Amino acid sequence: MGVKGEKTKELIRQEAYRLFAEKGFKEVTMKDICVRTGLSRGGLYRHYSGTAEIFAEILSEEYVIADRIEKKESATEILKDMLAEIKKEIPDKENSLSLAIYEYANQGNAAFFEEIHEKAKKRWNSLIEYGMESGEFRSVNADQVTDMILYYYQGLRMWSRVVPFEEKTAEHFVQTVQEMLL
Amino acid sequence: MGVKGEKTKELIRQEAYRLFAEKGFKEVTMKDICVRTGLSRGGLYRHYSGTAEIFAEILSEEYVIADRIEKKESATEILKDMLAEIKKEIPDKENSLSLAIYEYANQGNAAFFEEIHEKAKKRWNSLIEYGMESGEFRSVNADQVTDMILYYYQGLRMWSRVVPFEEKTAEHFVQTVQEMLL
Repeated sequence: MGVKGEKTKELIRQEAYRLFAEKGFKEVTMKDICVRTGLSRGGLYRHYSGTAEIFAEILSEEYVIADRIEKKESATEILKDMLAEIKKEIPDKENSLSLAIYEYANQGNAAFFEEIHEKAKKRWNSLIEYGMESGEFRSVNADQVTDMILYYYQGLRMWSRVVPFEEKTAEHFVQTVQEMLL
Repeated sequence: MGVKGEKTKELIRQEAYRLFAEKGFKEVTMKDICVRTGLSRGGLYRHYSGTAEIFAEILSEEYVIADRIEKKESATEILKDMLAEIKKEIPDKENSLSLAIYEYANQGNAAFFEEIHEKAKKRWNSLIEYGMESGEFRSVNADQVTDMILYYYQGLRMWSRVVPFEEKTAEHFVQTVQEMLL
């Protein structure tokens, strides 16, 4: 695919992301995405077969870090960037995909969700292992810390739709993870 | 209310709990509760004005610990009991109220949910403060640890409905909290 095709796909994912965050997964249709992107039906289907494919791609592109580990960047810097990203996202009700993810998983897509969850686990695990090897992180049980990070984060994302969040709440998450690892 | 009245209310809460865990909040009716408890409509309404009142009472009676602090029981013992309770509950999809809580909060009951959340915060905070005063717990930022416990737990409860849980997942939660405090 050419540069133009890639740009179109990016536009589709961007607009679909906003729709999923607004309405959850179930209520978003390919037609909604046509309206938002200005693409024709044919133009949209040339790139994606349905909302599930778009959603899956959005989820799997979050937080790419394997590259940075390969480039031997500092584990501390990677961690800090990931946490900054998360901190920005947590209080941002409008941009949270948590409801969409939950609906999607409950619609018989549990297997896909498991896959996403496994990937997130591997991502955090590999960062923690890498940080321990380079001596930047404390020696911890990587599986245990990964679980804490993932479920704590999921709890925050889910409840940020319901309870009003103080700045402090996101700050506590970042502090807890940093204190555990640094 | 006499002993018999109290027993009836307990039966109602018990059966309603199961219904909420099965179906969430929205789909449970007072009629369902009559069927499960064998009470007449009049008999049920004598005790509760609606499903919201029953649900609110179920939520607020979880984990009573103020009494145990007043009795000067060991903070470590109280903590261990609370964690054991949670650990039992996490993998128990059938008994998790997470979906019901989420639906209830989203139905314009955010204020009530906040109240429940504040109560849970106070409960954990008071236990942590108490444990630090008695010298049983490490010196920590009580607010920060409370947030970690509550949101981590919420994340676990919510996702236990979606991803298959290994025993280890609940174990990690218990270990993390214990390592932070003991």
